[in-house]
This record gives sequence, C-alpha cells and structure tokens, in this order.
Amino acid sequence: MGRQELLSRLAQRNGRRIVLLVLDGVGDLRTDAQPRTALDEARTPHLDRLAARSSLGRLVPVGTGITPGSGPGHLALFGYEPASPETDIGRGVLEALGLGLDILPDTVVARGNFATVDREGLLADRRAGRLPGAEGRRICARLASRIEAAGDAPGDALGNAVGDGIEIEVHPGEAYRFVLLFRPRPGTPPLGAELADTDPQRLGVAVPPVEAAAGAGEEARGTAARIGPAVAALQAELRDEERANGFLLRGFSKLPALPGVGELHGLRAAALAGYPLYRGVAKVCGMEIVDCGGSFGQVLDRLEERWDDFDYFFLHVKGTDMAGEDGDLPAKVGAIESVDALLPRLLDLGPDVLAITGDHSTPAPMTAHSWHPVPLLLRSENCFVDECPRFTEVEAIRGAIGTIPASDLMGLLLANAGKLAKFGA
Amino acid sequence: MGRQELLSRLAQRNGRRIVLLVLDGVGDLRTDAQPRTALDEARTPHLDRLAARSSLGRLVPVGTGITPGSGPGHLALFGYEPASPETDIGRGVLEALGLGLDILPDTVVARGNFATVDREGLLADRRAGRLPGAEGRRICARLASRIEAAGDAPGDALGNAVGDGIEIEVHPGEAYRFVLLFRPRPGTPPLGAELADTDPQRLGVAVPPVEAAAGAGEEARGTAARIGPAVAALQAELRDEERANGFLLRGFSKLPALPGVGELHGLRAAALAGYPLYRGVAKVCGMEIVDCGGSFGQVLDRLEERWDDFDYFFLHVKGTDMAGEDGDLPAKVGAIESVDALLPRLLDLGPDVLAITGDHSTPAPMTAHSWHPVPLLLRSENCFVDECPRFTEVEAIRGAIGTIPASDLMGLLLANAGKLAKFGA
Repeated sequence: MGRQELLSRLAQRNGRRIVLLVLDGVGDLRTDAQPRTALDEARTPHLDRLAARSSLGRLVPVGTGITPGSGPGHLALFGYEPASPETDIGRGVLEALGLGLDILPDTVVARGNFATVDREGLLADRRAGRLPGAEGRRICARLASRIEAAGDAPGDALGNAVGDGIEIEVHPGEAYRFVLLFRPRPGTPPLGAELADTDPQRLGVAVPPVEAAAGAGEEARGTAARIGPAVAALQAELRDEERANGFLLRGFSKLPALPGVGELHGLRAAALAGYPLYRGVAKVCGMEIVDCGGSFGQVLDRLEERWDDFDYFFLHVKGTDMAGEDGDLPAKVGAIESVDALLPRLLDLGPDVLAITGDHSTPAPMTAHSWHPVPLLLRSENCFVDECPRFTEVEAIRGAIGTIPASDLMGLLLANAGKLAKFGA
Repeated sequence: MGRQELLSRLAQRNGRRIVLLVLDGVGDLRTDAQPRTALDEARTPHLDRLAARSSLGRLVPVGTGITPGSGPGHLALFGYEPASPETDIGRGVLEALGLGLDILPDTVVARGNFATVDREGLLADRRAGRLPGAEGRRICARLASRIEAAGDAPGDALGNAVGDGIEIEVHPGEAYRFVLLFRPRPGTPPLGAELADTDPQRLGVAVPPVEAAAGAGEEARGTAARIGPAVAALQAELRDEERANGFLLRGFSKLPALPGVGELHGLRAAALAGYPLYRGVAKVCGMEIVDCGGSFGQVLDRLEERWDDFDYFFLHVKGTDMAGEDGDLPAKVGAIESVDALLPRLLDLGPDVLAITGDHSTPAPMTAHSWHPVPLLLRSENCFVDECPRFTEVEAIRGAIGTIPASDLMGLLLANAGKLAKFGA
C-alpha cells in the first residue's frame, strides 16, 4: 500500500488547524566563500523562541542529489510523490499556471516561443531576438483576432479546427513566450497531449508541423490531425512580421488528474500565495485559492479573514527564493527577518500545527535551486521539543525529525493535528 | 520511476571531474574492547584539513543490518541497487573476476572446489583437505590438458561437448578453488546459467551431476544436457588423484547485463584498482580499467597520467580492509595514514568533486565485513561545509549529508559536479 493510500485510510476529521508556511528556497549553504547561511545571519527573535519549543528536521524534496523545480518541490510538500508519471506537471500546463490561467482537465496546453524564420522558412532565431513583452502581447492579440475572425469558416484551416469543435486561446507570457490552449467543445472527441514539440532545438531547419509523439496512440494522432492545420494557419498569419514571423511549441500537456488533499485527507485546504504558479500547483492538489498579494503581510491579512473557513493553510513567501536566485545574501536575510517580524500575527491565530520550511534550497552562492536538504520547523502540542535553539540548516541536522522525504511531511502534519487514526489494533 | 532512470533522464555532460576514493572496509567500531576506531586513532593532518571544508555523512551499503560482500558494496557506490536480480553477480562470475579473467556476456562460469570422494564415490572431504595452491594449479593443468586432448573426438564425452560448440576453460584459484568456464562458439545455441550446484553440502553422499535448477526453463535444461557429460568426464579424469579425486561446482552464473555508468550518466569513467575483483566489478559497470599496482602511490601515478582522459575516477585502496580482516587496528591506522600522506597529490589535481568512503565497514574487533554504516566525506564547491572537524565515524553521524543509502551517492556526486539538470520546472 502506498503511503498516500495509507494516510487516506487513516484520515479522521477534527477542527484543528494546520499552517504550512513555505519560505521558497529558504535553505542555503555554508561554503568557503559564504561561511554563514541566511538563516544563520538573520536576526529572528520570534523564530528563535518558536524553535526552542519545536521539533526541527530536514526535508529532501525529490531525492538525494535531485534539484527540484517549483512544481515537484510543492507537490512533495503537499504529500504527493513528486517523481511519478501521475504527478508530472507538463511544461505547457506549468507555464499556464504561472500566468494564472484557469486550466480545465480536458484542455491541451503548449508553451510557445515566438521565433524568427528566414525567407526559405528555416529557423533563424529560436526566441525572435528575445522579443520584448509589449511586442509579444501585440502579436498574441493579433493571433487572437485571427482565431476570432476564423469562426468556423469552412475552407479556412483555423476555421475548420474551430468547426471541428476546438476552442483555441492564446495568452502572452514573459518576453517572447506565450501559451496556446486547445479545448474540445462538449460533445466532441477528447484531445490527447502526447504531441511532439515543434521546436527542432537547432537553427537552419524548418519548423516541424504538430505530430503525435513517438509511440503515442490513436487519440494523439487524431489530435495532431485536428489541430495541426490550425497551428499552421496561425504560423502563416505571422509571415509579414519582422522578427516574430513564426513560433515553436513545446511541452504539450494536460492537467494531471490528482486526487485532492480534501478527498485524500479530509482537509478543507486553502492556498494563500501571491504568485500564480504556486496558486496553480495548489489548485492541482485540490486547494481553494484565496486571492492575496505577494507580501507576507498581505498573506496574513487574508489568513486572518479566512481563519474560520479552512483547516489547512498553505502560505507562500517568494522573497527568499528571489534573493537566493539573485545571489543576494543580505536580501535573503532581509526576507527572513521580514517574516520573523510578522510571525506574532500568525502565532496569535493559534494554529494547532505550524510547519515552516522551503520547497527546495536556493543557495545564494549558487544563484539557483539546489538539491540540498531543506530545514524544517514543526510546532504542535505534541511535537518533540528537541535541543535546537534556532531555526538554521546546521541545527536542523540534529533535530528530532531527522532527514526525511518532503512527501512525508503531510503525514507528519496530519499526525500532529490528530487527523490520523491509529494503524492496526 | 526508479532513481537510476531519473538520474539518467537528468544527465548533462560537462568537463568537471569526480573522484571516488574507496578505502575498502574503512568503517570501524568503538567497542568495550576497542574504544577508538582506526579513523579516530590515525594521525591525518591532510584529511582533517579537508574534512573542515567538506560535508560528512554516512552510507548504508545494502540495507540496515545487511553485511555486504565486495560486489554489492561497490555496485551500490557506483549507483546500482545492490539487492536486485539485475545486479546479482553470481559466485562463479565473482570468483572469475577476482582472478582477473575476462568474462564475456555469453559465458557460463562456475566456481569449483577440489574435493575427496571415497571408494564408493561418496563425498569424504568438500575441500580435499584444503589442498595447497601448488597442488590446485597442477590439477588444473591436468584438466586443461585433458580438455585439449579431447578435441572434438567423437565417443569421448568431453570431446562431444567440444564438438557441440562449447569451449571449456579451467583456471586455478586460491588453494582448493578453481573456476570453470563454458562458452558457446559462434553459431551454436546460447548457454543458460540456471544450473543447480553440484555440491550436496554434506558428506557421505554422491556428488550429483549437473542439472538445471528447480523451475529453470528449456535453455538451462539444454545446457545441463550439453555440459553435464563433459563435467562427468573431467571428474573421471581425477579418479587416480590421492586427495583431489573429484570436485564440486557452485554458483553457475553469467555476467549481469548492466547499463554502464557512461550510458546512464554520460560519464567517461575509469577504475584504478590493484586487485582484480574490484577491476572486475568496475568493468561490469562499464568503466575503463586503468592498469595499476595496488598501493595508493601506484594508483596516484596512473591517475596523474590519465587525468585528462576521464571525468569519473574510481580509486581503490585495499589495505584498510586487509588490516580489518586481520583484526589488526595498528595496521589499519597505518593504512589510513599512508593514504593521508599522499592525499596532497590527489588534491593537487584539483578534482571538482571528491568523495572518500568505504564499500562497507570491516571493524577490526570483528575481523570481517559488517553492516555498520560507512563514513563519507564529500568535498565540492557547493557542498555544505558542516561542523565536523575530522573524518571519523562519530563526526560523520552529525554531518550535513546524513545517513543515506550508498546507492544514492552517485546522484550526489553528479549533482555536486553540475552533471544533473533540474527536475521539473
């Protein structure tokens, strides 16, 4: 029996509240060049007092040595096995979630790059000279008009696709990026996402048409036949553009169909995150999205308002990760101290279980996500109060929780909240 | 998805070099009788300085409480799951690798014991009175002559097997041991290794003929029929010997067909080991064997010569294990100090990632391999510099790497070398 199934069998509801505070990328490194981490350096009186009454430990997001993206990092924190086909969030879907788009389970999503092709139709620049955002938005609007104008006009490749029951949407992303959505209208056959990228990954060759991925089945082949001509018509529409006179599509995917944390664990779960990507991943896991700004203060505003409505709250703080990505240790220290300053507001609500951790480490010296274990602080009435006086990476090594897979955290939170029955008699 | 498959999917090549220095059996015990381990006792100024800039941790070779042989111990260090049917290196193959024989994938290998049978043909001594090596070599030469003389003579059981396309080789091992190889000539049917031992494991019974193992398929049954009479003819050849007038065969096996570390991880991997067994296991894992002597100095000589040719180097030091097997703590301390003295030569090469560990513990008080976790030292630009001032068993308990399966080490080395892409976006 898998762990999630076991937890699900043992689920019991009660009124106790769990708060999972994710300081994105909080874990850092001690290296020759940076002898102390952001958590070492930060002045955190409230966190220190809390650590002295808590269990510490470390979470391994995906596996030893594996550097997780934000998707797998959060899926693991929410109790899902992050490296399995069932939880694989495709690139297209992830980009759409990051843009805050509402994806339905039947929709095929691709991530697009505007690109430049030469007179012979051969790929000359895979990012159209890193097209600025305003240009990207203009071209997306042009494509949207073209889709609308096509209607279901017979004889027009785009119109044929629409007439065949497919809604097509285009949404601009950052710079040269965009997202293309294909959704079957009710009563028309479902669409398959097992489609090959149309990005040849090298210059001087033609952009390939939409085709089923190698080894894909009937559904994907049918989908390629239905949407391929429409994609070609959209490409043709851009022929007179100066730079973005073509595009490449990658990461065709659909939302993974995951059982939600409500169904699995009997939780009424809410996500309070300022950035769309994290809201999107939480939604995939069945959480209700509580609209809020990106600062911890804004998150707390909404938390206080909605405290009575849920029993599991995922709070997301982005600043730690951004500072780590920038290699800016003082900014990371500042982000941690800002959280510390507002921590009393969170504690005043009296969460029955509070976990503070990250979805991965983003060490400032690496200016990137990394594979290093992430420190975890867990406070509840029944947590083992260990001998760690501060919430830091080094203290966490000797914490009572030990070093565990991040996907084990959900069970630990549920246990501390009394939401898991005894296993066996 | 299995861990090895995940690592393989994330593989990215670069020029950075990984060195894995295996101090065979280095882990030791603190007991009532031996209050300090060899690593505790050794004077190791260079290792100490390195430890102060490294991450420490511990490796569990196969599983908690499982004492590994050298084969599984090394397979785990190379990233393979050591307790799976795919990585099972049979006794026959292991013995042949230990003799430095070049085994081909189609060859069936058995490990033999010369034995004594009485006048009724019943087993009287399973090791022929622990026959000395010179006698074993003489008898092997006699068997080899018999094989050569048989040619493919019809009417001779051995000749029939040869005529049926089977090459037979005999190689002496230590004392009463030898190895028997059966290889099908091109164009003849393959041989199966699912054959039962011909060792009844007790005295006073007849030595059974070669038979397919219980539940084995057609290939093994055919193989038994083809090689059985030849084995009987070789037994008959020894009838007039005084002590070694028979033999027992065990561990029929073929090389496991493992994907190599090059194929899996994009590594150009070299093994520098003085002892054939370790070279053999490295070869099974797709490494190139760099011929060298058994001392650490000799290993370093070749390492310096071949530094530009590879990006993964497995260095093997045997002295620590031998001293442990002898229960000789001072010798083990000496073996460690010898490595320490030459460590600057290794560090001067500037490996991007350096791991120092063992394939298992060989505690001197036990004079044998054991199940205890093995200390690990890992140094790279992005290792977490923890608070462990020396490379010892006790310091390793509180190291930043924690206690992890030995088969996780490969992923950690690859991550530290920047040879793994991020998982998910």
